[in-house]
Amino acid sequence: MNTKNSTEVAIGGKLFTLCGYEDEEYLQRVASYLNNKLNEYSKIESFLRQDSDTQSILIQLNIADDYFKAKKQIDKLEEDLKSKEKELYDLKHELVTAQIKLENAVQNNMK
Amino acid sequence: MNTKNSTEVAIGGKLFTLCGYEDEEYLQRVASYLNNKLNEYSKIESFLRQDSDTQSILIQLNIADDYFKAKKQIDKLEEDLKSKEKELYDLKHELVTAQIKLENAVQNNMK
Repeated sequence: MNTKNSTEVAIGGKLFTLCGYEDEEYLQRVASYLNNKLNEYSKIESFLRQDSDTQSILIQLNIADDYFKAKKQIDKLEEDLKSKEKELYDLKHELVTAQIKLENAVQNNMK
Repeated sequence: MNTKNSTEVAIGGKLFTLCGYEDEEYLQRVASYLNNKLNEYSKIESFLRQDSDTQSILIQLNIADDYFKAKKQIDKLEEDLKSKEKELYDLKHELVTAQIKLENAVQNNMK
């Protein structure tokens, strides 16, 4: 089991001390991703006009959208993997068949 | 190109009209995911004691963490896929070799 880490990160101009099982580099990457999002949004007029609760929910929706798109990609990759495994299984079967026929043909040659 | 959709969703007790290229079912799923997060957090004492800016950032971090974990899974699956493709490539080569040998053996049989 990993030991608990405590890392200080700056997000949206505020300092947070995050405790968790993740390593510091990971926490910094997540913080960096979040800061980029906040920066992007801070340039959008229509976003800045919203109250802070609404702004907060919009950002959460945007991150959740990234997450859902990643989940969709996972589903697609898992399907592709299953399909490759089936292809491998069939190919192995073909190979064994060819090898048996080869053995028989070679034995026939020796008669 | 998909046409823009406009969907009304309830998040954290507030109504939002979301416009985007995603379908309504997708937007409702994302809203549902977010509401579940908000519900879970609303049961945590230490969370409720934070000011609303901090609460907001903590939730964003949590969603971002889900996203980063999904990205990690994508990397793993892409590696597995590459590995299967290499296996398939090698197996196809083996099969072709066995089939050529079989052809030769059969031709030798007929001499």
